[in-house]
Amino acid sequence: MNKRIDSLQAWLKENGQDACLVTSTENVFYLSGFRSFPHERLLGLFVFPDKAPLLIVPKMEIEDAKHSGYCDEILGYTDIENPWELIQRITGPLDRVAIEKTHLNVERLEALHHYLDVKETSNVEEKLQVLRMVKDQEELHILKEAAELADFAIEVGVSEISEGKTELDIIAAIEYELKKKGIREMSFQTMVLTGKNGASPHGTPGLTPISKGDLVLFDLGVVHNGYCSDITRTVAYGDISDEQKNIYDTVLQAELSALEKVRPGVSAKELDLTARNIISEAGYGNYFPHRLGHGLGVSVHEYPSLTETNPLLMEKGMVFTIEPGIYVPNVAGVRIEDDVVVTENGYETLTKFPKTLQVIS
Amino acid sequence: MNKRIDSLQAWLKENGQDACLVTSTENVFYLSGFRSFPHERLLGLFVFPDKAPLLIVPKMEIEDAKHSGYCDEILGYTDIENPWELIQRITGPLDRVAIEKTHLNVERLEALHHYLDVKETSNVEEKLQVLRMVKDQEELHILKEAAELADFAIEVGVSEISEGKTELDIIAAIEYELKKKGIREMSFQTMVLTGKNGASPHGTPGLTPISKGDLVLFDLGVVHNGYCSDITRTVAYGDISDEQKNIYDTVLQAELSALEKVRPGVSAKELDLTARNIISEAGYGNYFPHRLGHGLGVSVHEYPSLTETNPLLMEKGMVFTIEPGIYVPNVAGVRIEDDVVVTENGYETLTKFPKTLQVIS
Repeated sequence: MNKRIDSLQAWLKENGQDACLVTSTENVFYLSGFRSFPHERLLGLFVFPDKAPLLIVPKMEIEDAKHSGYCDEILGYTDIENPWELIQRITGPLDRVAIEKTHLNVERLEALHHYLDVKETSNVEEKLQVLRMVKDQEELHILKEAAELADFAIEVGVSEISEGKTELDIIAAIEYELKKKGIREMSFQTMVLTGKNGASPHGTPGLTPISKGDLVLFDLGVVHNGYCSDITRTVAYGDISDEQKNIYDTVLQAELSALEKVRPGVSAKELDLTARNIISEAGYGNYFPHRLGHGLGVSVHEYPSLTETNPLLMEKGMVFTIEPGIYVPNVAGVRIEDDVVVTENGYETLTKFPKTLQVIS
Repeated sequence: MNKRIDSLQAWLKENGQDACLVTSTENVFYLSGFRSFPHERLLGLFVFPDKAPLLIVPKMEIEDAKHSGYCDEILGYTDIENPWELIQRITGPLDRVAIEKTHLNVERLEALHHYLDVKETSNVEEKLQVLRMVKDQEELHILKEAAELADFAIEVGVSEISEGKTELDIIAAIEYELKKKGIREMSFQTMVLTGKNGASPHGTPGLTPISKGDLVLFDLGVVHNGYCSDITRTVAYGDISDEQKNIYDTVLQAELSALEKVRPGVSAKELDLTARNIISEAGYGNYFPHRLGHGLGVSVHEYPSLTETNPLLMEKGMVFTIEPGIYVPNVAGVRIEDDVVVTENGYETLTKFPKTLQVIS
């Protein structure tokens, strides 16, 4: 954690900030090692330019925080204490504070002004996104394990496919097997979409039964030691049409072509456009309505963002998804998604479930 | 919904507000009938004192919003549009706007100031909490069904208890059976705690195996048609000690005594103290560290709050939990929780799973 705090402290100095207050579960975890979901209660980490950080937690979480690896000061507060009054006694007034503007709520902003006499706030989110973008060895190790669990989940899901089972039946089986392995938290709501439902990039799984001739789309990921995986596979249940096969092949070719370009120095937009051009040339350009992929780490969506306009250059240690898709209403919805890490000379895919069209009979 | 909007409009007039902007999933659903989780995207409902409301949704959700029962204006925006610029064209500048201060983030507060020229914000949360506190017939009907599903989940969990199964095994089985019934969303993370783990009111379920002589505590609830249930039962696996039995009996007596007092006109604090006194008289006063209960509706925690200091008087149609507990480290953790509605002359419990000590052999 120390290198992360050091980097943030340097940023605070450069930007003339007296402190930053980080309040999201993800960023507090990234900077302190302590991962907590305190709901309406305040969780916060103050980082100062020239002294050790201060972690604020509900009193009942103090022991957990001490065991998380965080070694600096911890302030616990009970439900009948006002944490801001306790913070004020430690920090005194602070003129300029950087916050997470898409996370901190108005009530807490007012508390910063009122109790800590804050005059001006700025946004620390971009800095933290950039800091989190390149993963260290320990993070890569955890992300690999998270991806293996995602592969396992796809295996379970595919093995459950049979006539008449509903999307929710399959999800139930996947999450059941994951819980047996100790995984409680998915990185987002598991998606299993069959037939027409798969042709919406924002479908909601429900009680639709699977039947022969359907494409079945799985999109899921787990949270493992605080890090997220995210995989999509589309499989065929029985015979599918030539057009469906053509769509599948196009998506697969787009995915593989983008993957092959991954190396340090390639731009996000080049990766997106590599896949997008293949899909456009096949005549499906209007049916690929989203970006190619997104970074992956303590959040399931983080930097880098792989869009057709992002000039950002890839660096060794960046981890992101590559997930082209084609969604033609009433014909097919196909998406193939891997988790990828940029290596010294190229890339490694963390998700390994086969991508050649799996036909379930 | 119209009565709810009417009431809010009257409040806006009384308080000299030009509008309120509601942004939480729960309050937007309560006021519009549209339930959505747009993550980082803006979801909002503007309510004005003298004209029809305006719902803001990501463009891809417009059709869902139209089918939700909401009949007034809807503004959709794409990912490349700035919703605030579109809102500005419709609303023009607004001087005084009421917001959810514990929900609206700083970025959106700044957008209100910048795009809508807002001069002053106030908090609408208390008003909405009070409005939501008394349920109508339709809400009561849904809450009853949600409670039945919670009863079913406890039945599944209890039937799964056997030597060596872990807490997560039991949770996996419960959520599997609920998904088979079409329930995807729990009202909070399902808790199954065994042995020592149950003696912490904030335990986290994991890979602890259940063994004979354990008390097993279940705390769970489902979200059904947008409404939450919340039930706790504690059962014995095999023989338990006399002290554990005594703790169970004390909690049960506390719960039943508080229940019997529920009727229009009784205060929240009288209910809390009725249970608390029984527990204190039995010598366990220091081991009941939380309030007696909380309101239940579109949120799993809402008004009324049943604390020993809340003078609020119960009214017909209020729905809340009654959930005394005793947690003695290394001895026993017992909590018994029902969902309760205040009726004309008393109360009705919505959760029905038996409360006499269930001993699983």
